[in-house]
Amino acid sequence: MGDKGRVPVGIVGASGYGGVQLVRLLMDHPGVELAYLGGESSAGKPFSALYPHLAHRVSQPIEPVDPEIIADRCQVVFLSLPNGLACQMAPTLVEKGCQVLDLSADYRFSDLETYKTWYGTERTDQAVAATAVYGLPELYRARIAESQLIGCPGCYPTASLLALSPLLKQGLIVPETAIIDAKSGTSGGGRQAKIGLLLAEADNSLGAYGVARHRHTPEIEQICSDLAGHEVTIQFTPHLIPMVRGILATVYATLRDPGLVREDLITIYTAFYRNSPWVTVCESGIYPQTKWACGSNLCYIGIEVDPRTGRVIVMSVIDNLIKGQAGQAIQCMNLMMGWEETLGLPKLGIYP
Amino acid sequence: MGDKGRVPVGIVGASGYGGVQLVRLLMDHPGVELAYLGGESSAGKPFSALYPHLAHRVSQPIEPVDPEIIADRCQVVFLSLPNGLACQMAPTLVEKGCQVLDLSADYRFSDLETYKTWYGTERTDQAVAATAVYGLPELYRARIAESQLIGCPGCYPTASLLALSPLLKQGLIVPETAIIDAKSGTSGGGRQAKIGLLLAEADNSLGAYGVARHRHTPEIEQICSDLAGHEVTIQFTPHLIPMVRGILATVYATLRDPGLVREDLITIYTAFYRNSPWVTVCESGIYPQTKWACGSNLCYIGIEVDPRTGRVIVMSVIDNLIKGQAGQAIQCMNLMMGWEETLGLPKLGIYP
Amino acid sequence: MGDKGRVPVGIVGASGYGGVQLVRLLMDHPGVELAYLGGESSAGKPFSALYPHLAHRVSQPIEPVDPEIIADRCQVVFLSLPNGLACQMAPTLVEKGCQVLDLSADYRFSDLETYKTWYGTERTDQAVAATAVYGLPELYRARIAESQLIGCPGCYPTASLLALSPLLKQGLIVPETAIIDAKSGTSGGGRQAKIGLLLAEADNSLGAYGVARHRHTPEIEQICSDLAGHEVTIQFTPHLIPMVRGILATVYATLRDPGLVREDLITIYTAFYRNSPWVTVCESGIYPQTKWACGSNLCYIGIEVDPRTGRVIVMSVIDNLIKGQAGQAIQCMNLMMGWEETLGLPKLGIYP
Amino acid sequence: MGDKGRVPVGIVGASGYGGVQLVRLLMDHPGVELAYLGGESSAGKPFSALYPHLAHRVSQPIEPVDPEIIADRCQVVFLSLPNGLACQMAPTLVEKGCQVLDLSADYRFSDLETYKTWYGTERTDQAVAATAVYGLPELYRARIAESQLIGCPGCYPTASLLALSPLLKQGLIVPETAIIDAKSGTSGGGRQAKIGLLLAEADNSLGAYGVARHRHTPEIEQICSDLAGHEVTIQFTPHLIPMVRGILATVYATLRDPGLVREDLITIYTAFYRNSPWVTVCESGIYPQTKWACGSNLCYIGIEVDPRTGRVIVMSVIDNLIKGQAGQAIQCMNLMMGWEETLGLPKLGIYP
Repeated sequence: MGDKGRVPVGIVGASGYGGVQLVRLLMDHPGVELAYLGGESSAGKPFSALYPHLAHRVSQPIEPVDPEIIADRCQVVFLSLPNGLACQMAPTLVEKGCQVLDLSADYRFSDLETYKTWYGTERTDQAVAATAVYGLPELYRARIAESQLIGCPGCYPTASLLALSPLLKQGLIVPETAIIDAKSGTSGGGRQAKIGLLLAEADNSLGAYGVARHRHTPEIEQICSDLAGHEVTIQFTPHLIPMVRGILATVYATLRDPGLVREDLITIYTAFYRNSPWVTVCESGIYPQTKWACGSNLCYIGIEVDPRTGRVIVMSVIDNLIKGQAGQAIQCMNLMMGWEETLGLPKLGIYP
Repeated sequence: MGDKGRVPVGIVGASGYGGVQLVRLLMDHPGVELAYLGGESSAGKPFSALYPHLAHRVSQPIEPVDPEIIADRCQVVFLSLPNGLACQMAPTLVEKGCQVLDLSADYRFSDLETYKTWYGTERTDQAVAATAVYGLPELYRARIAESQLIGCPGCYPTASLLALSPLLKQGLIVPETAIIDAKSGTSGGGRQAKIGLLLAEADNSLGAYGVARHRHTPEIEQICSDLAGHEVTIQFTPHLIPMVRGILATVYATLRDPGLVREDLITIYTAFYRNSPWVTVCESGIYPQTKWACGSNLCYIGIEVDPRTGRVIVMSVIDNLIKGQAGQAIQCMNLMMGWEETLGLPKLGIYP
Repeated sequence: MGDKGRVPVGIVGASGYGGVQLVRLLMDHPGVELAYLGGESSAGKPFSALYPHLAHRVSQPIEPVDPEIIADRCQVVFLSLPNGLACQMAPTLVEKGCQVLDLSADYRFSDLETYKTWYGTERTDQAVAATAVYGLPELYRARIAESQLIGCPGCYPTASLLALSPLLKQGLIVPETAIIDAKSGTSGGGRQAKIGLLLAEADNSLGAYGVARHRHTPEIEQICSDLAGHEVTIQFTPHLIPMVRGILATVYATLRDPGLVREDLITIYTAFYRNSPWVTVCESGIYPQTKWACGSNLCYIGIEVDPRTGRVIVMSVIDNLIKGQAGQAIQCMNLMMGWEETLGLPKLGIYP
Repeated sequence: MGDKGRVPVGIVGASGYGGVQLVRLLMDHPGVELAYLGGESSAGKPFSALYPHLAHRVSQPIEPVDPEIIADRCQVVFLSLPNGLACQMAPTLVEKGCQVLDLSADYRFSDLETYKTWYGTERTDQAVAATAVYGLPELYRARIAESQLIGCPGCYPTASLLALSPLLKQGLIVPETAIIDAKSGTSGGGRQAKIGLLLAEADNSLGAYGVARHRHTPEIEQICSDLAGHEVTIQFTPHLIPMVRGILATVYATLRDPGLVREDLITIYTAFYRNSPWVTVCESGIYPQTKWACGSNLCYIGIEVDPRTGRVIVMSVIDNLIKGQAGQAIQCMNLMMGWEETLGLPKLGIYP
């Protein structure tokens, strides 16, 4: 236990966008103190060499990654690493008693065969993986609170599942008609020097990618199947949008009962998310903009029914780096520690 | 007939984005001369007061709108006006022998009841309207060449129909499964001072609008029904994208024959557009970016099949102000005049 | 005094960008409660009709503007109105005992003749105006703490003066050589539907405006003259940048002592701002980006000396809507109430 | 000589933004045919692997770089390579009779010592370098027409020198007071995968770089000194702007004669550029936007005089990839071949 009763937390993989969000949010979180910042390629550098705007607040260096040392210094550990690395480290951390929140795909799948199929890596940590809980608090709040290892959702699955869950849980749609047309700002691609993510390439342009084969598909399907009670196949198409932050998921599905109207669904969604402080259902006729959520941990959901086609159209927006990544991990930590789910998280976007 | 055998053309409604595109493209078109620029609210001003970057090239004033005078001076007239105004002017122009290209919705509908339902205006020009041809050359090339009045398509219908037409014409999909998730740059909203189109509001943001009730829906359905040979209902959702130009339509539909693969469809599309110089079908595995088309009259089409869901996903991109508006009108004019379909139109985008 | 000992505050002019920033920041401020939201044209509407993303947090309506009623309900009043309106209302509020923070130009000038020359309005509130203090805490901290009426600085003057003050105060430069080349995001133009601020016009473009005659010039000169101890004339050129938020002021001036090097100046600046928690002087060789400050009340200052030309180049960045507007007003309020200068203000930008 | 009397031209370094602009512009140029596309790292790939939007128009592969072979096939060769490579290749090309246009810094300096100081490379091609002409047609039209080797200007120097030249040539300013505050879109950084050029980093942000030491400084000073008739030192500060294309140079200088007014200078500039079809001087009170030039080879110049400070402020805008790079090289080629200076170059921007 750290200074003034604050919980010591560590971040492994502090150099990426997930890392820098965690650093900022955890520095302002009243329940924790930042006890460790680690990274492979950037070890030894001061954190401010990567993010000079934090030089006056973060004096810590980035340290090498040694799970034993991390476990000695931290009660809670956030892993913000490329896929396939967390599973090499989490077993040790869990064994030494740490509470672990993994932001990669490694602990999102209940069936590691699915992981292997889509991520191409054999896994040897079945026992530990079996204890992991999918870190979407709006669906798995109670289980998260009791878990020691959380597989935090991807940014697209977060937006998509918050839009789809009430429909599937209540059996309101024909599951196989569900189509998710998702749009993300380019920060979702990480702080990686790739040609396609250059401003000169990505600005004033727009395109789909990973059509029919994006790795977030099985993750969405796993939770949809859990909610529907049977295997569900989903159409998921991501698009790169010329903006920094934000995801919009536009979800289409055919209603089982063509007599349902917009207001019915707003009522159902409002009830479904009554105890979820981070989800806001828009009033009738209001569709959310990604900007509304920018800088906050909020998800806004707008709902429309098309009586001509018998479809419901649900639009959900989040800040991909907060509710879609670092903020959601902290929301999970709050639950694990028995704190208010909203503790230390930004409540309002910085509009405009 | 004008100087050096050039055809005298006029633009009514020169002050908007459609107008300024027409001015620029027609000034560089080898077959025409700009004989008239007209506008209501801006009449009397020099054109360069609205667009100072053209001051060194366009010395003409914006003149009041008088169909008789326009008809005396122009052989071809482009109407770039808000909906409901062209239909007050086109009958006179047609009667006096002009060839008329209307960029508004007024002459897009074969059934004026549909127009009345969606646009709320009663029409009294049935006889003239009945002679109008829908100005999508890739579908109606021959009829356009013989017509005197063209209802040029909307920007969204252009992108959507070029993506859907081969599928419907060949009966490859279940029509009622078609969903068009369309995304447009904000110039599609015109040069109007609206809060929602301000950079401070629209930049770094994204949202849907007009869900289940956008006016381009019946226009798309009319042509789809024509192609399918029966009434077709389509799901169409437009989104505002934080960029100036460009439209991407992501189209989903269920294949009748689940055995079709991507390459089959590329072959079919390539054949369908063999004689269409402005449509380019992408190679297998390539998805188009809106930026590719920016500044040109091109439409790029990318195709994917998802064997897991049995759906085809077609992505088409255009420059909304060129192939989606002014360029397409000029393409139609070229056909009407018996010129090369590509004459005077920009052949390549200005990437990046 | 309001609930739980919180100070009741009011915002007049809540509908603009200054207003919505104040609403957001004051809602999260631990020392105050939002007792009144007022506006002229929007009176009677719920605040959420203007900003639907706040519908779940702000249920208050926008009320008509009546200084008597405002004074009864509020101890502190923020005026976020177009120039020329605050001066009609502030005298009543001050007389009734309110502490008033005006975000317009009305109370920025010690000499109302200057105001009249640049803003074209005759003033009749000389007595009250004479009690106003210029709300730049880094320069006038003590006077602000004792004042009842604050004329909060413009966004450009804030960035410019924080860059220039140490140089002028210490007599390090030849004042008349000072040139401020300033760049602002378009939110600085307010939430006004103007053609030039449309995304389609302002995005992917850049230009100067108000060259040699922008109204922030006399405001900058007044403070520079105060610091220099004699009349100073400054060159100030604003530019509109294709981004939402942020100002960068690039300031050039000729050093009196050509032997000064970068490190000397960094030492001088660091000392000058030692007690200013919202100003951060960058390390040698680091130049600030506007994004660093985005969402925070921080000002970052970078310094370079060019030994070839004998000039110092100072770059300062702020979030124009926070340190340049609403945040700075709250910083002043904190001083007036005897609170920590940093209370309730965002400490870090939301990078990226 | 190629097909139909067209001149065979080659591009070495076709993969970058300079290369792709050259490809597009030369493909539409009526006087040339594209006989060779070369590159080091991309040799062997089809050009369309780098730029799939050109797949339907460019079927050529990128070939290895062999000056002997290039010279056999091409009469004109554009070198679009990183600094320090052209000087290894140009002597051979020149010797074999090619006309060479180098877009790098290698042949911009009349004094190779300056090159060595700023670029750090020793040179052994003094004899050939001495024959090179600086490729700014507005200043050196006649010499370009007679030269076999052109050192095309950098993008910043083009904008800066077109703004400054009339002032220096006519002796209207005190040269050492000249300050160039320049702003560029990120495409100026090339198609290189650098963190700082990512959309997530560069969008919605703004900052200066290379302050007091950017390599374009000596290039600007060389030409200014030539115009002034004596050594001139210039202050030059570049900034990165969140947009794809465009440069704005805001130039400040103290007038020798404080009685000059704006209209005087507009007259002088108009006369200076009377025979320069690519330079447009704005009307009184009009300041140019970078968007005006986007997609064209134009330079727009706006002029203001500040009687309070005695300074002239000149604003010039160009498309950095056209008039600032590929377009200007083609303009030089046109002069070398005895063609119209405007041949094959885009005359109007694609506004908005």
